[in-house]
Amino acid sequence: MSNIWGRNLRLSIFGESHGGGIGIVIDGLPAGFGIDMTEIKRHMARRSPGRGILSTKRKEDDEVEILSGMLEEVTTGAPLCGIIRNTDTRSKDYTKNLPRPGTADLTAHIKFNGHNDHRGGGHFSGRLTAPLAFAGGIARQVLESRGIRIGAHILQIGKHLDEPFSKIDEALFEKLGASDFPLINESNAGPMKEEIIKASEEGDSIGGVVECAAFGHPAGLGSPFFESLESSLTSLVFSIPGTKGIEFGDGFAMAAMRGSEANDGWLKVNGNITSSTNHSGGINGGITNGMPIVFRTVFRPTASIAKEQSTVDLITGESKALTIAGRHDPCIAPRAVVVIESVLALCLMDSILEGRL
Amino acid sequence: MSNIWGRNLRLSIFGESHGGGIGIVIDGLPAGFGIDMTEIKRHMARRSPGRGILSTKRKEDDEVEILSGMLEEVTTGAPLCGIIRNTDTRSKDYTKNLPRPGTADLTAHIKFNGHNDHRGGGHFSGRLTAPLAFAGGIARQVLESRGIRIGAHILQIGKHLDEPFSKIDEALFEKLGASDFPLINESNAGPMKEEIIKASEEGDSIGGVVECAAFGHPAGLGSPFFESLESSLTSLVFSIPGTKGIEFGDGFAMAAMRGSEANDGWLKVNGNITSSTNHSGGINGGITNGMPIVFRTVFRPTASIAKEQSTVDLITGESKALTIAGRHDPCIAPRAVVVIESVLALCLMDSILEGRL
Amino acid sequence: MSNIWGRNLRLSIFGESHGGGIGIVIDGLPAGFGIDMTEIKRHMARRSPGRGILSTKRKEDDEVEILSGMLEEVTTGAPLCGIIRNTDTRSKDYTKNLPRPGTADLTAHIKFNGHNDHRGGGHFSGRLTAPLAFAGGIARQVLESRGIRIGAHILQIGKHLDEPFSKIDEALFEKLGASDFPLINESNAGPMKEEIIKASEEGDSIGGVVECAAFGHPAGLGSPFFESLESSLTSLVFSIPGTKGIEFGDGFAMAAMRGSEANDGWLKVNGNITSSTNHSGGINGGITNGMPIVFRTVFRPTASIAKEQSTVDLITGESKALTIAGRHDPCIAPRAVVVIESVLALCLMDSILEGRL
Amino acid sequence: MSNIWGRNLRLSIFGESHGGGIGIVIDGLPAGFGIDMTEIKRHMARRSPGRGILSTKRKEDDEVEILSGMLEEVTTGAPLCGIIRNTDTRSKDYTKNLPRPGTADLTAHIKFNGHNDHRGGGHFSGRLTAPLAFAGGIARQVLESRGIRIGAHILQIGKHLDEPFSKIDEALFEKLGASDFPLINESNAGPMKEEIIKASEEGDSIGGVVECAAFGHPAGLGSPFFESLESSLTSLVFSIPGTKGIEFGDGFAMAAMRGSEANDGWLKVNGNITSSTNHSGGINGGITNGMPIVFRTVFRPTASIAKEQSTVDLITGESKALTIAGRHDPCIAPRAVVVIESVLALCLMDSILEGRL
Repeated sequence: MSNIWGRNLRLSIFGESHGGGIGIVIDGLPAGFGIDMTEIKRHMARRSPGRGILSTKRKEDDEVEILSGMLEEVTTGAPLCGIIRNTDTRSKDYTKNLPRPGTADLTAHIKFNGHNDHRGGGHFSGRLTAPLAFAGGIARQVLESRGIRIGAHILQIGKHLDEPFSKIDEALFEKLGASDFPLINESNAGPMKEEIIKASEEGDSIGGVVECAAFGHPAGLGSPFFESLESSLTSLVFSIPGTKGIEFGDGFAMAAMRGSEANDGWLKVNGNITSSTNHSGGINGGITNGMPIVFRTVFRPTASIAKEQSTVDLITGESKALTIAGRHDPCIAPRAVVVIESVLALCLMDSILEGRL
Repeated sequence: MSNIWGRNLRLSIFGESHGGGIGIVIDGLPAGFGIDMTEIKRHMARRSPGRGILSTKRKEDDEVEILSGMLEEVTTGAPLCGIIRNTDTRSKDYTKNLPRPGTADLTAHIKFNGHNDHRGGGHFSGRLTAPLAFAGGIARQVLESRGIRIGAHILQIGKHLDEPFSKIDEALFEKLGASDFPLINESNAGPMKEEIIKASEEGDSIGGVVECAAFGHPAGLGSPFFESLESSLTSLVFSIPGTKGIEFGDGFAMAAMRGSEANDGWLKVNGNITSSTNHSGGINGGITNGMPIVFRTVFRPTASIAKEQSTVDLITGESKALTIAGRHDPCIAPRAVVVIESVLALCLMDSILEGRL
Repeated sequence: MSNIWGRNLRLSIFGESHGGGIGIVIDGLPAGFGIDMTEIKRHMARRSPGRGILSTKRKEDDEVEILSGMLEEVTTGAPLCGIIRNTDTRSKDYTKNLPRPGTADLTAHIKFNGHNDHRGGGHFSGRLTAPLAFAGGIARQVLESRGIRIGAHILQIGKHLDEPFSKIDEALFEKLGASDFPLINESNAGPMKEEIIKASEEGDSIGGVVECAAFGHPAGLGSPFFESLESSLTSLVFSIPGTKGIEFGDGFAMAAMRGSEANDGWLKVNGNITSSTNHSGGINGGITNGMPIVFRTVFRPTASIAKEQSTVDLITGESKALTIAGRHDPCIAPRAVVVIESVLALCLMDSILEGRL
Repeated sequence: MSNIWGRNLRLSIFGESHGGGIGIVIDGLPAGFGIDMTEIKRHMARRSPGRGILSTKRKEDDEVEILSGMLEEVTTGAPLCGIIRNTDTRSKDYTKNLPRPGTADLTAHIKFNGHNDHRGGGHFSGRLTAPLAFAGGIARQVLESRGIRIGAHILQIGKHLDEPFSKIDEALFEKLGASDFPLINESNAGPMKEEIIKASEEGDSIGGVVECAAFGHPAGLGSPFFESLESSLTSLVFSIPGTKGIEFGDGFAMAAMRGSEANDGWLKVNGNITSSTNHSGGINGGITNGMPIVFRTVFRPTASIAKEQSTVDLITGESKALTIAGRHDPCIAPRAVVVIESVLALCLMDSILEGRL
């Protein structure tokens, strides 16, 4: 508890990695919106495994069945429930009594007195990001119908960096959205992929950073005090398994900056108040200022690794050496790109729906 | 909207910097808890200005009047409302039509169609952290009565760093809590303070990072999916004006780490499952694992600076040079230390109150 | 817990009858709305005691001090907090160890382990309806600016009935709003007042029913499934101390009706779909149909009576005869009229603010 | 919006009468609770049609598939999602452009700009009470494991009354739970059933009242101010299609009572504080006092009747005579009995789960 997020757009998520299925209920979608289901599939495919050695070998079609809220691919205004069956599960890879370091195995065991479905991480599995991506795919279409664009790329894997966002436009987002390893400067792909492969070959994993942006949204989104856009968005981002940090605009670099460097001076351009810099990442006082929203999220290296690790047997209480068999991504970041885009879409939509007279 | 946070402990905050007063309603406090009001005063004094040249010259007693929920310094179980009068206000320092870069002046103007109380940032002022610190001071006492300790220090100001948390214990937190410029290694104070003074003398400001920790709390706090402890805490942290980033445990450094480095292997020590490392910052899968919670928050350099900046006149639409007169902190971090501790206390208490059969 | 209501308009209420003060925080008011404070006073005065023998002798000015959210009588968009000091309190009238039958004395004692502020009912006092009336007075002004009108009258006291609503229009609501004993047919006042006076003289109290209506609101307010307008409104109505039942439209009489009698057939009148009857009380499927909203609320006879009653001493555990000294209304209904109007106003406003694209 | 209810036990409901399926997500169930699925089936069967001429001819197995939150019939602590496929649908019985009087057809059309799935009432169908009964069946089992019992009976159909609750005990609830037409005095069945059959034969329907009670729950459930047990429960009850009124204890009869009649004097019996009467229906100040909870709910006569009614064509704007073909219950009350029990179970469980230190 709690599986619910949002105020104006409300999400209710459920499911366990190796149970009957996973899914999400989305309430607050505008009635009469035509959903492009082909585009939803394409959007979700960007999250799916299948990048060869770069991702897990677990095959999931992630076919979403929509049970409600849509009639002939048009929203009815009632809550939309999408479910995804679990298919390619290999539960024997998981040993309930040996919690995998770095995962929720131990904490879930404590939280639920040992009754949690531990198989594949159960409710804590990264697999739960599939329904999140599904919901985000719909939100994104609603936003796009209003001229709002969202894009993201891999900024860092191991020590290798892509270029950060500078010029943000539709062409760039098109390019990023079409790639299964989205980078601003594609020449950075090589070393990054090598780093992932090397980690994988050594039975290990590697961390990464995803940078995400949006433009075309109105100024004035977000609220004081506890529902600043950053509060709202970070609460969603930290629901994604593996997230360990987030920063907006210049983020942690601001610690070493002067106010005169970090402030974005206001200018009048074509009748709009704007700025030539975007140190704030498009948000002041928790509310969008009309400049692109820019934020970065760091993902820990995948916790499930083949290398031997120390753990404790929950039944006997003895220390044990653990070698994990299952199929796991050596790096979360590539598949997380579309999930990060999705949660930004959901957050913006919740914010846009805010009621006003 | 919205001024409300929390599920089991509920906060409702209100007030504007130069209005009649600010305050907070706290619901969910256990009945029969004796509040040490002297300690509350001491706790809140750590947030108050009055660090000489290091902080704003605005004098605020921040005397809290408790209107309800407490009888003879014992909680009654009813919502506790504390209010703080605004006294030393100099509204003429604020010009409504010239939004200060880096602040919420422009975004609040857009959000509220120009009706926001702009004086001193109005509802967006850092002054709103006073009631937050008040609430946190109470939550902290409840937590301490259960053996839970919280502490924080200034980790970075400008380019100058303090040592990060390593050994976390009561003695350290005592020392930090007693200082108005809390550092793990006090010899770092000199260069940090000089940096602040220099910025101040140049009519400028400087950023900083606060590192916060807790120990003594139980494993099992926090919830899947959307109420991970990190989700809950970050949503509160990003309510604090000036926050631009947060990271848990090894945070952004995890991007360059291998899983085998980042995972905290489990060990059995004195009958408890624990770990010799704490890369995860005490949280796995959004739930506490019993190790200390560790996180860092970056604060932008104070946006209100004396140096001339560019802005746009909201009435005439003309570009203008702006020189801000008011009294402002040259660095947010020192006063933010106790605010960060407060929001962690509030978040932990909300989590501990979670209902279970 | 919980002191919070509403989704788009959010209320946070606090206070105890004999503590420092009571109040309410209202979030979600539109920015830039000019509040007529004279009218607020008049609205709240309708709730105040001072109907001679018909009401309690406790004198309360119920002067509201607005701490935030309003600048020069115009809303700023930030949460509006109004507080009311407790003045004419006579705490000695209350004996903590002898719970008064029919009140929350015993249940509050159990709930809060004896730490509740029992004086005058503490947080459970009908006095808490003063801030509710204050908030409702503001909501009503916002609604009136959009052509929505709300009115109520005393339908029943003891066995004496007023006429139920038939023709609902502005003239009627004007008349009801101007009266301190509002009736559709004023000739019913005599027997009702006599009934109250008789009960009072005998150290007793009497129950009553208030009927409330609204018109001028749009069709389409309220939501499926759990936020039907009836769900939303009844949750507020049952917050009012003394409420024991509510019915919409023909209400309980519908048990004996046929569908062909109870259905309101649709007609086209002046281009609008409407009905010549209003058995549904203006709501179908939890959503307004454009016809007047009509509902009735029953208030128990005031629990605090002078007549001797049996109770149990919470300290000694002995049965005791209790004679209550304090000053109490012999009948809740007359003062509840404006409170019922207020909660309808709050509920409609919350509903109107619902976000839609 | 909104499809979500509850604070500690959270429900998220979805589905439309003639769509792919309906269902509910339940979050907050204790982990490790063994669900008796046979008993769930029996519980839900009490809601199903199949009372011959007394109920609709629509056949629904209401087979619930549990997708998550349960492993080998034991709860895992993760959200439990149950779905029910729609099978025996005859959509051609519904004409989108002719709203049926007394139903949500018109209001849903307005709310969702004509995009609502109108077939069978869509999201507003009484069919949505199936997942509610499912959730309530689980909650009831949790409550029963703690000694809490819930029961209900038909109190009124047309002008015919059953006896109201007097002696409330397990034997009575056993008897009521085993009957598909539950009455305290079974000799009242004849006239009631005749009334239903007569209405049905005339192409009409008839209203009814259900009376529900609980015992064995602790005193102290429910909260001030906005989460009184009555607020919480009525918000759920008014989600059930067809509800038009609710009253607790003596309810509307209290309007004609004196305080000295309506108050339940406290007595000490076997060390417990209790009362010999229960005019308050077990609730004072919104909090349970330990006496049985007793409340009554009135259901309008089924709106969908065969008799000719007047309506307006939403496309042409012309007045039309409407004759409804579909299969409908001539009386809601008999099938609503278990739904009312279910929502009480859900409400009590939410309340019991309230977090306290």
